[in-house]
Amino acid sequence: MHRNSDWDKLSEECGIFGIYGAGYENISSSIYYGLTALQHRGQESAGIAAERDGKMRFHKKMGLVREVFDESILDKMEGDVAIGHVRYSTSGESYEINAQPLVVNYRKQSIALAHNGNLINAKSLREELEEKGSIFQTSTDSEVIAYLMARNYRMGLKEAVKATAGQIEGAFALLIICEGKLIGVRDPNGLRPLSVGVMEGGEYVLSSESCAFDLVGARFLRDVLPGEMVIIDENGLESVVYDKRDTKSLCSFEFVYFARPDSVIDGKSVYMSRIEAGRILAKEHPAVADIVMAVPDSGSVAALGYSQESGIPYAQGLIKNKYLGRTFIQPNQKLREQAVKLKLSVVKEVVKGRSVVLVDDSIVRGTTSARIVAMLKDAGAREIHFRVSSPPVTHSCYFGIDTPDERQLVGAVHSLESVKEIIGVDSLGYISPGGLMESIGMDRSGLCGACFSGNYPMEVPSSGGEFLFEKN
Amino acid sequence: MHRNSDWDKLSEECGIFGIYGAGYENISSSIYYGLTALQHRGQESAGIAAERDGKMRFHKKMGLVREVFDESILDKMEGDVAIGHVRYSTSGESYEINAQPLVVNYRKQSIALAHNGNLINAKSLREELEEKGSIFQTSTDSEVIAYLMARNYRMGLKEAVKATAGQIEGAFALLIICEGKLIGVRDPNGLRPLSVGVMEGGEYVLSSESCAFDLVGARFLRDVLPGEMVIIDENGLESVVYDKRDTKSLCSFEFVYFARPDSVIDGKSVYMSRIEAGRILAKEHPAVADIVMAVPDSGSVAALGYSQESGIPYAQGLIKNKYLGRTFIQPNQKLREQAVKLKLSVVKEVVKGRSVVLVDDSIVRGTTSARIVAMLKDAGAREIHFRVSSPPVTHSCYFGIDTPDERQLVGAVHSLESVKEIIGVDSLGYISPGGLMESIGMDRSGLCGACFSGNYPMEVPSSGGEFLFEKN
Amino acid sequence: MHRNSDWDKLSEECGIFGIYGAGYENISSSIYYGLTALQHRGQESAGIAAERDGKMRFHKKMGLVREVFDESILDKMEGDVAIGHVRYSTSGESYEINAQPLVVNYRKQSIALAHNGNLINAKSLREELEEKGSIFQTSTDSEVIAYLMARNYRMGLKEAVKATAGQIEGAFALLIICEGKLIGVRDPNGLRPLSVGVMEGGEYVLSSESCAFDLVGARFLRDVLPGEMVIIDENGLESVVYDKRDTKSLCSFEFVYFARPDSVIDGKSVYMSRIEAGRILAKEHPAVADIVMAVPDSGSVAALGYSQESGIPYAQGLIKNKYLGRTFIQPNQKLREQAVKLKLSVVKEVVKGRSVVLVDDSIVRGTTSARIVAMLKDAGAREIHFRVSSPPVTHSCYFGIDTPDERQLVGAVHSLESVKEIIGVDSLGYISPGGLMESIGMDRSGLCGACFSGNYPMEVPSSGGEFLFEKN
Amino acid sequence: MHRNSDWDKLSEECGIFGIYGAGYENISSSIYYGLTALQHRGQESAGIAAERDGKMRFHKKMGLVREVFDESILDKMEGDVAIGHVRYSTSGESYEINAQPLVVNYRKQSIALAHNGNLINAKSLREELEEKGSIFQTSTDSEVIAYLMARNYRMGLKEAVKATAGQIEGAFALLIICEGKLIGVRDPNGLRPLSVGVMEGGEYVLSSESCAFDLVGARFLRDVLPGEMVIIDENGLESVVYDKRDTKSLCSFEFVYFARPDSVIDGKSVYMSRIEAGRILAKEHPAVADIVMAVPDSGSVAALGYSQESGIPYAQGLIKNKYLGRTFIQPNQKLREQAVKLKLSVVKEVVKGRSVVLVDDSIVRGTTSARIVAMLKDAGAREIHFRVSSPPVTHSCYFGIDTPDERQLVGAVHSLESVKEIIGVDSLGYISPGGLMESIGMDRSGLCGACFSGNYPMEVPSSGGEFLFEKN
Ligand SMILES: Nc1ncnc2c1ncn2[C@@H]1O[C@H](COP(=O)(O)OP(=O)(O)O)[C@@H](O)[C@H]1O
Ligand SMILES: Nc1ncnc2c1ncn2[C@@H]1O[C@H](COP(=O)(O)OP(=O)(O)O)[C@@H](O)[C@H]1O
Ligand SMILES: Nc1ncnc2c1ncn2[C@@H]1O[C@H](COP(=O)(O)OP(=O)(O)O)[C@@H](O)[C@H]1O
Ligand SMILES: Nc1ncnc2c1ncn2[C@@H]1O[C@H](COP(=O)(O)OP(=O)(O)O)[C@@H](O)[C@H]1O
Ligand code: SF4
Ligand code: SF4
Ligand code: SF4
Ligand code: SF4
Ligand SMILES: [Mg+2]
Ligand SMILES: [Mg+2]
Ligand SMILES: [Mg+2]
Ligand SMILES: [Mg+2]
Repeated sequence: MHRNSDWDKLSEECGIFGIYGAGYENISSSIYYGLTALQHRGQESAGIAAERDGKMRFHKKMGLVREVFDESILDKMEGDVAIGHVRYSTSGESYEINAQPLVVNYRKQSIALAHNGNLINAKSLREELEEKGSIFQTSTDSEVIAYLMARNYRMGLKEAVKATAGQIEGAFALLIICEGKLIGVRDPNGLRPLSVGVMEGGEYVLSSESCAFDLVGARFLRDVLPGEMVIIDENGLESVVYDKRDTKSLCSFEFVYFARPDSVIDGKSVYMSRIEAGRILAKEHPAVADIVMAVPDSGSVAALGYSQESGIPYAQGLIKNKYLGRTFIQPNQKLREQAVKLKLSVVKEVVKGRSVVLVDDSIVRGTTSARIVAMLKDAGAREIHFRVSSPPVTHSCYFGIDTPDERQLVGAVHSLESVKEIIGVDSLGYISPGGLMESIGMDRSGLCGACFSGNYPMEVPSSGGEFLFEKN
Repeated sequence: MHRNSDWDKLSEECGIFGIYGAGYENISSSIYYGLTALQHRGQESAGIAAERDGKMRFHKKMGLVREVFDESILDKMEGDVAIGHVRYSTSGESYEINAQPLVVNYRKQSIALAHNGNLINAKSLREELEEKGSIFQTSTDSEVIAYLMARNYRMGLKEAVKATAGQIEGAFALLIICEGKLIGVRDPNGLRPLSVGVMEGGEYVLSSESCAFDLVGARFLRDVLPGEMVIIDENGLESVVYDKRDTKSLCSFEFVYFARPDSVIDGKSVYMSRIEAGRILAKEHPAVADIVMAVPDSGSVAALGYSQESGIPYAQGLIKNKYLGRTFIQPNQKLREQAVKLKLSVVKEVVKGRSVVLVDDSIVRGTTSARIVAMLKDAGAREIHFRVSSPPVTHSCYFGIDTPDERQLVGAVHSLESVKEIIGVDSLGYISPGGLMESIGMDRSGLCGACFSGNYPMEVPSSGGEFLFEKN
Repeated sequence: MHRNSDWDKLSEECGIFGIYGAGYENISSSIYYGLTALQHRGQESAGIAAERDGKMRFHKKMGLVREVFDESILDKMEGDVAIGHVRYSTSGESYEINAQPLVVNYRKQSIALAHNGNLINAKSLREELEEKGSIFQTSTDSEVIAYLMARNYRMGLKEAVKATAGQIEGAFALLIICEGKLIGVRDPNGLRPLSVGVMEGGEYVLSSESCAFDLVGARFLRDVLPGEMVIIDENGLESVVYDKRDTKSLCSFEFVYFARPDSVIDGKSVYMSRIEAGRILAKEHPAVADIVMAVPDSGSVAALGYSQESGIPYAQGLIKNKYLGRTFIQPNQKLREQAVKLKLSVVKEVVKGRSVVLVDDSIVRGTTSARIVAMLKDAGAREIHFRVSSPPVTHSCYFGIDTPDERQLVGAVHSLESVKEIIGVDSLGYISPGGLMESIGMDRSGLCGACFSGNYPMEVPSSGGEFLFEKN
Repeated sequence: MHRNSDWDKLSEECGIFGIYGAGYENISSSIYYGLTALQHRGQESAGIAAERDGKMRFHKKMGLVREVFDESILDKMEGDVAIGHVRYSTSGESYEINAQPLVVNYRKQSIALAHNGNLINAKSLREELEEKGSIFQTSTDSEVIAYLMARNYRMGLKEAVKATAGQIEGAFALLIICEGKLIGVRDPNGLRPLSVGVMEGGEYVLSSESCAFDLVGARFLRDVLPGEMVIIDENGLESVVYDKRDTKSLCSFEFVYFARPDSVIDGKSVYMSRIEAGRILAKEHPAVADIVMAVPDSGSVAALGYSQESGIPYAQGLIKNKYLGRTFIQPNQKLREQAVKLKLSVVKEVVKGRSVVLVDDSIVRGTTSARIVAMLKDAGAREIHFRVSSPPVTHSCYFGIDTPDERQLVGAVHSLESVKEIIGVDSLGYISPGGLMESIGMDRSGLCGACFSGNYPMEVPSSGGEFLFEKN
């Protein structure tokens, strides 16, 4: 979906997917299907790189996976190993040149990289590299990583990856093709998910989310661990723990919003965590109401949980248009007010005269929430009790998630009471940080919640979460 | 979504949308938004025709509304009156030339037509017209209607429309621009829906479904009646009842499957009818189970109703991929078996070890149902109780809905018991015809249910439901 | 080349090409190559229709032949008989819907038509047909012809074509596919060319110009005669003379400008006629000068002839950019003056200080000629003697050639002396009508020269040469 | 034109064009027009980069200039300084990623580069850079140059360019935007041309060929000298001679074939040099014949010279199709033989029964020449005397021109006598090396003629002229 500037969500940045399978036919088609299952993680650009016999082929472009590729392109992309990437650009403008995977050549090697996450030391690394004569053609962290790989390469491939992983800080789930091998790396905090699957023929698959395994005929094996890298080649999968600290901080918003409900991350079902969050929310912020309904699709599962716990019947009072997309023409000024109506519409019979519990996953700017509430009131809702399955977002994310400037975070600059009024609801309840942790079933030390707690799992730059290299 | 040949649904054919508003700015943009809200009624082609000062402009093409139009095209399409159309082609192949609206020139008049439905006497009308020297460039009924209009035109516009409406038989909701007026016609049986809305400025809007009014700033006024035509011009809306028989037969599948839940048709909420159908289904075919879940999206509301009536908790055990589309590459033979997995995937934690009530809107061929059931069993479902919110589809539709040959209708050629086995479920229950009528709240005389009862509201050709002019 | 409004030429409308060859492989590819050789006759749209086993396939679109077709489209267009068309639209705006071939369905027959020329009674025929209930979807004459064919069809195919050819007046070279046969018709005056070729395997080919035969492996057989139709099927070629009047009036501008120099029309080489015209021009309007040069490409051959006769050396003082095209962005106001420089540039070393004979094929508006002359003067030409290988264009063409309104024809509203001044040359000489006829080697009765003589070969409408159906 | 593998010419690689004009409106449009005039130097990709206020915008893609840009793209590309590039890829496959200008970021600077030529030490420079940790995303020399610029940048811009120009060896005409300045550099041998123009407003223009000045309203000022760099900013043009050796070796094939006839290079008119070459050829290899004709377009001017000297009349016996292009579908095997007929066709009336002098600019593989000769013989030519306005091509070019492997150069592996037989002509004559030098009017020391003499102006790698980095 093309996001107009006041859309009201955090934005995921990327999904990555890779397969190692010597002689595997149609490897690029399988990457294509895998990326389709990860499309919710990024809709602006898509790309695939595939290698066979030292020859790297790649194709990447702005657009959805199904728009970027057609059969004739896939047919040309044979490979024994392949990786793919979907991207949601974090800057207002976005450029083809930033599409991934990034393919670089270095000493007779072609290296392909696909990265999900954000490095907090990219800027200083970049400056250092520029000091030493590096030039940059994109504004992606991947290019920084590629340089480090090149500089470390004389150590041999495995040591080079280890050294590189040690130099970069922040969030990264990384897929690399080099020397015909498939390498997966997860950052020491495990901020971004990465899991391993295996096909019937023994081919290994790496994916941002487990929901992509089934449709390529793979089954989930395990998660890549924080601080672990896996190297897959004809000898199978080798695991190297390159960082032994025990500092796990998986992004809790993967459960709240980003990941698909049918994924399992680090052992926890996303669906179940959302049901649980809804239940806890019902306990923490009960309401007297006629129905529970969600802002679809992201609020649906938590709303079900709220309904189960509270006993208030669940209804589908909002319908989401399935046919908007990147190329959808946004309404001009005159029709701007009703932009939200193009995306969501009310089932009047459900809400008319009713007292409604409305569940959404999060409130970021609050603008969209306010418009949805207005729509429901127009449709005759008697009372609206807004329930949010994450705590108030108050801080910028530095780990690969697009957050507005902190001054635009309604939860950061307004009290609960004023947010309630801004949004126009009769009551407002956010899940507590503890409740959210409980819903995920990991304890606080295992999860990142910095965007609502301010407790970043590592030191972050003081100046704010803007992205660093937006120049070209 | 690109339908591969064994997809398992009836297919709607068209949605139509029109606005009359002298001096109304951005009329084509509003048609664009209206069509987006009707996109579920047809995803193969889209088109808009707009007239101002006797000059008709039109643009139509294969693709989704958002793919067919861009801002520069809309900007050029000024008009005081405009109509639009989305189409799902009923033949395996589909052609740009059949896209609508159809624009023809006749004696210094340009006439634009958009048609939802199917004429049962199109073939004989066409032959008659060809006898008299007419030639056809498309295989659409609209071209037949245009010819009749031309032949009747000497009577004056209003009489010509009346005469034409009297000559054609079958299902039709029709929008026409002629002499700068907007005309809407609904067939005497009211098989296809058509409703009237009005904007704040007094502009009239005609739409296949009421769900499209809100987002163009219009509110629902009333339905066009079976056998009624409305003529809208600078003098307002004139109603002409051109057929006084009292023979209403609204398509019951609009409620079961085609229409969006947030639409109201002939006074009845689609959402409420689906809830009701689910409830009745629960009474007619109770089950002992752990959860109720739907085949999304079409089965969701009925599943909720089933859950409410039975008290069995509702869950979202299947996730539907939102990013497939017309240009999505279907898997080749090798992966064909798992095609359904690209569209739907299971939340294993929901179904594992559970006894499941699975609700879908209909069973047509049964192929997809069988695959979904297999997927659920693979995921560990203990028992599956399949419940269907429409009776077994046993007959072809002649009224604008794409049904497979009767020999491919699993409900027509197999007993309930064998269907149960073919699909692989532990129990199978269809709603009764009476139950369905009750859910809609109209009595049997007001609804068409021919595809499950064989009682066609008019005499139909004996040879089968194939479409007539598939030649070019 | 995209023609900006002040470009200074008559514009050809169409080229047509057809093949009959039962079992011939790649028939559509051969049409594609044939059309490429006729591309100079029309660059706005291209189309092909091919029939096999009663199944008509067609594809047409705005653009050059190479832009409209790709291999996958051609591969799908199998046929035993096929026709193609290239079109230069005569109205300022041009529409995809007017692209040809036109395919219509009539009583289980698909008929495909491709037409080069213009009917002078199209308007009255159209009105008559509308009287009888016909409707029109395009503004092409072809649709009128298709209707007449349909109305006459009960007579049997051959008689229907004869009757139709008898009803239409004006200029037409026509290709028709019907009942699996390939039919070619040329108007009784033979205004537009049409010739027959034959391949090694005996397959017949019809083409607007003979230059297209060689590259599909065919050799020239003969021209279709004025008033003749040829019907080609598995029995070979049957000739029917449907009009016995002896009234030949081949368009003399085919020799002057439209046709390719390597074509032979009605027995006369275009190249040789241009050489001859140049020679005669040298005799009629000698000049004392240093060099002879042409406005390329159309003036080149006549310039050679002028050089040969006069003994003044030939030079290439103007270079024409080969890479402009339909999608080339025309310069805005500021750069408008130098628009001609984008198309043509001067070889300064050739013209500097020289007295130049400049040969062009025709002067229409005179605007471009004036700009070219200015360019040459800027480059230092001492004297310019403009020689034109056609007489002054003074009247509109009604036979398929786009001429500006007569008030814009510089030769119609200004004396020779003032044209000389408007264009800014030192002397100006047009070939005489008699000289032109002599160059072609047909006598006056065999050629049309109405646009410079006013003697139309048939009665034409009094109101002017506008095109008739520009409405939609 | 899409070159099929056996096309028979050397291939130019690039054209470059730049403007410096603070506050100049429509700078990118002017680059667009300039590139259109240089399109003959490269038809595979085109690109423009424009800078204003430190913000670099660029757009580049596969295709002709007119295909790559539309008005909305140009409108967005404002700048005070801009450069453009057209490219003919030298490898069989060609990639979007190699399109130029290359834009890199380095220490808060964006640098844009456009390069025409080829570096002979690119491989070793690249290896050295890789040693030091550089990575490469393209296979272009420009990326090597960009790295060197970055490494030298601490010296200050001017010194950095000087140092870089000193490190690279081979052929280069280079345009750079950096720090808002426009920089042009020509290699010490001046192998590739580069000239300076100036507009009325004083804006400077740099162009590969002078033919592009006129149409942007500029006039030719002077050539950039071998070993010179020019730096243009708000203070005007500063000239720096970075290499003082006196070693000029301008590519003689610029005159023979690459450059447009209306260009002047290093003081010599291309047109005049070709006339002269034709004259000398007539003296060196006279023939008794009826007509002189050219293989168009490249042989035309020399043929005119031959005609003038010999007194044998000039004729246009071959017509070249103007509408083939990059997307033209090459004929399949069956029609392969006649591929040349799609491009060229014979005016039979000209050649039939005649003894013909046929002039072409060069013979490379000889395959096309043989086919053209066969075509002429088929058309009835009595005798064919082939005359070539360059000496036999016997060696690979290392300076930016695509030459086949030496074993494919017919002139390298066969005697004159056998080439005559292979091509099938009655006599064959190449201009002598001395004659060619004389035609250009520079002495041997000022021109490169290595591809026919083997005397390279610098030491070249021994292994052959393949391009170095074709990997990705
Ligand atoms: N096919 C799906 N069905 C249900 N939920 C989905 C599906 N795909 C993604 N989701 C979930 O919904 C979220 C997106 O929610 P949605 O409301 O559609 O978008 P947004 O809130 O960005 O407008 C995803 O991050 C994921 O958790
Ligand atoms: N945005 C929406 N939200 C919920 N239901 C919808 C929406 N749009 C359409 N529908 C309903 O879902 C049906 C389509 O169901 P779905 O299951 O998505 O497609 P299919 O069954 O054809 O694969 C529509 O006919 C309509 O009843
Ligand atoms: N390939 C060709 N070579 C030489 N002449 C051609 C060629 N193709 C067409 N012509 C001739 O040139 C005319 C077009 O002339 P040209 O000067 O290029 O166009 P215009 O005058 O419309 O700008 C054609 O009508 C034809 O007579
Ligand atoms: N517009 C033009 N008119 C005449 N000659 C041109 C023109 N443009 C380029 N040329 C010359 O013709 C050469 C291209 O010759 P041509 O025969 O058309 O191509 P090729 O030989 O590659 O098929 C150019 O390199 C240049 O010298
Ligand atoms: S700050 Fe928030 S969004 Fe960012 S990684 Fe942590 S929990 Fe996730
Ligand atoms: S036959 Fe079925 S699908 Fe057709 S109109 Fe009647 S109820 Fe609707
Ligand atoms: S009027 Fe002129 S252009 Fe028209 S057909 Fe006659 S000669 Fe040709
Ligand atoms: S080797 Fe030949 S083509 Fe290359 S630069 Fe020298 S003269 Fe030119
Ligand atoms: Mg949401
Ligand atoms: Mg469904
Ligand atoms: Mg011309
Ligand atoms: Mg050539």
